[in-house]
Amino acid sequence: MLVNGIPTDQVPLSDRGLQYGDGLFETIAVIDSKPRAWHRHMVRLARGESALGIPETDKEQLYSEALSLSHGLLNGVLKIIVTRGSGGRGYRPPEVCKPRRILSLHNWPDYPDHWFTEGVQLRVCETRWSRNSRLSGLKHLNRLEQVLARQEWQDPEIAEGLMLDEAGSVISATQSNLFAVVDGELVTPDLSQSGIAGVMRELVIECAGKLGIPVRIAAIDVEGLKQADALFLTNSIMGICPVAALSDHRFKDHKPAAKLRHEIIEAIAGSA
Amino acid sequence: MLVNGIPTDQVPLSDRGLQYGDGLFETIAVIDSKPRAWHRHMVRLARGESALGIPETDKEQLYSEALSLSHGLLNGVLKIIVTRGSGGRGYRPPEVCKPRRILSLHNWPDYPDHWFTEGVQLRVCETRWSRNSRLSGLKHLNRLEQVLARQEWQDPEIAEGLMLDEAGSVISATQSNLFAVVDGELVTPDLSQSGIAGVMRELVIECAGKLGIPVRIAAIDVEGLKQADALFLTNSIMGICPVAALSDHRFKDHKPAAKLRHEIIEAIAGSA
Repeated sequence: MLVNGIPTDQVPLSDRGLQYGDGLFETIAVIDSKPRAWHRHMVRLARGESALGIPETDKEQLYSEALSLSHGLLNGVLKIIVTRGSGGRGYRPPEVCKPRRILSLHNWPDYPDHWFTEGVQLRVCETRWSRNSRLSGLKHLNRLEQVLARQEWQDPEIAEGLMLDEAGSVISATQSNLFAVVDGELVTPDLSQSGIAGVMRELVIECAGKLGIPVRIAAIDVEGLKQADALFLTNSIMGICPVAALSDHRFKDHKPAAKLRHEIIEAIAGSA
Repeated sequence: MLVNGIPTDQVPLSDRGLQYGDGLFETIAVIDSKPRAWHRHMVRLARGESALGIPETDKEQLYSEALSLSHGLLNGVLKIIVTRGSGGRGYRPPEVCKPRRILSLHNWPDYPDHWFTEGVQLRVCETRWSRNSRLSGLKHLNRLEQVLARQEWQDPEIAEGLMLDEAGSVISATQSNLFAVVDGELVTPDLSQSGIAGVMRELVIECAGKLGIPVRIAAIDVEGLKQADALFLTNSIMGICPVAALSDHRFKDHKPAAKLRHEIIEAIAGSA
């Protein structure tokens, strides 16, 4: 672990990340000592810094810190937190902010193989996404809604939980974005009011475009998802993972949807 | 500063308060070495712990830690943070949580005297409160909305900013609750979907009840506030503070409203 480049596993109590969740994070796959999709993660981080009014961190410095942590690692997960830094009591940011860079390495998660061959089981969470267009899309540190949603189930057979907004539109799963395949087209939820705009989601949308697969960003509810030919989840660590069932609805083995998914997986592997 | 009873100014990086804002806080006035309205603060903290599924902290232990920090202090601010404790990567709370207690003392804020004699100037913030009935009312650590709202102005002549919800209802100011005096009645915003249910707000409602002053909890918009006889703000440190002006609307010197405010201030002083 590195905090502002210095090996330590502690941060000051005065850090506004702890006090108010005043910061951002990125979760990055490390393969063969290299952080994957680095540039995309840094573009999103910079977008978040700008939206929150946090002075922009030096991305080359972050890269050299990331490389020094990842050196010799076959695979793992690099988590980068950037907070607004330390401050006094009160919501008002200090006049001069010195953002704090917090890098930590974690084990590669032990996803069962059958998730990727047979698909995963989803449930629908009761905890909703709130709507706030100033915060939507950002991977900021205010994540209580996901914590409460993930706390709703213990069954290890259920891989993920869908989270809706107040109006009943599906926004995402607790830690992944969502795509539906409908008549050869991809549909993914609109994130203009809620949700996190995932780096893997962005890659899927781009690669689909290159493959000539239409992508529609739209509101979709649970019943709409059940009528899709297939669903898959995306995040930077898991990649692309098919969905076998949503609550009691099982998705049939829809060959064209599986083919489309594999084409995208190959296109992403080729572009990385 | 005390973390789990031990003097230190650091917390582990693995703390879920930093990682996800997974925790709660209380801001308590300390006068003559004693934390004020201690029991009310602890009732709210326990309500938050229950709502987030954080194992309940020992309030007697917290009290003894609070007293040891406050010993010999004429006046100051005690901030108590309770997080879900340390955990691994991922939103899912660990099977066994060991909450972390973080206590820190801060200087009494330097409020100008004229705030309390002549009233303060308010503005209306662009940053909105999001709606989430699972989180509303709680003083949890996901406070980016207030940070962004407080970041909107620098003018030291403006004491506070009103924050509305998506529908345009006024919920609170950035760090205080709000009451309007309308024809001898108190009106304060409904916090069932957004906002923090302040300890001083609760005291005002209770004391008004004892004084026979009607209190209505209702949706109210900015235009509605401008039509009130008077407004005042409440929080545990500032107490009760009159409002001189809301944007360009000045409140007239409404004698009955001022009398009512003073009656409540006296009742609260008597009940403490």
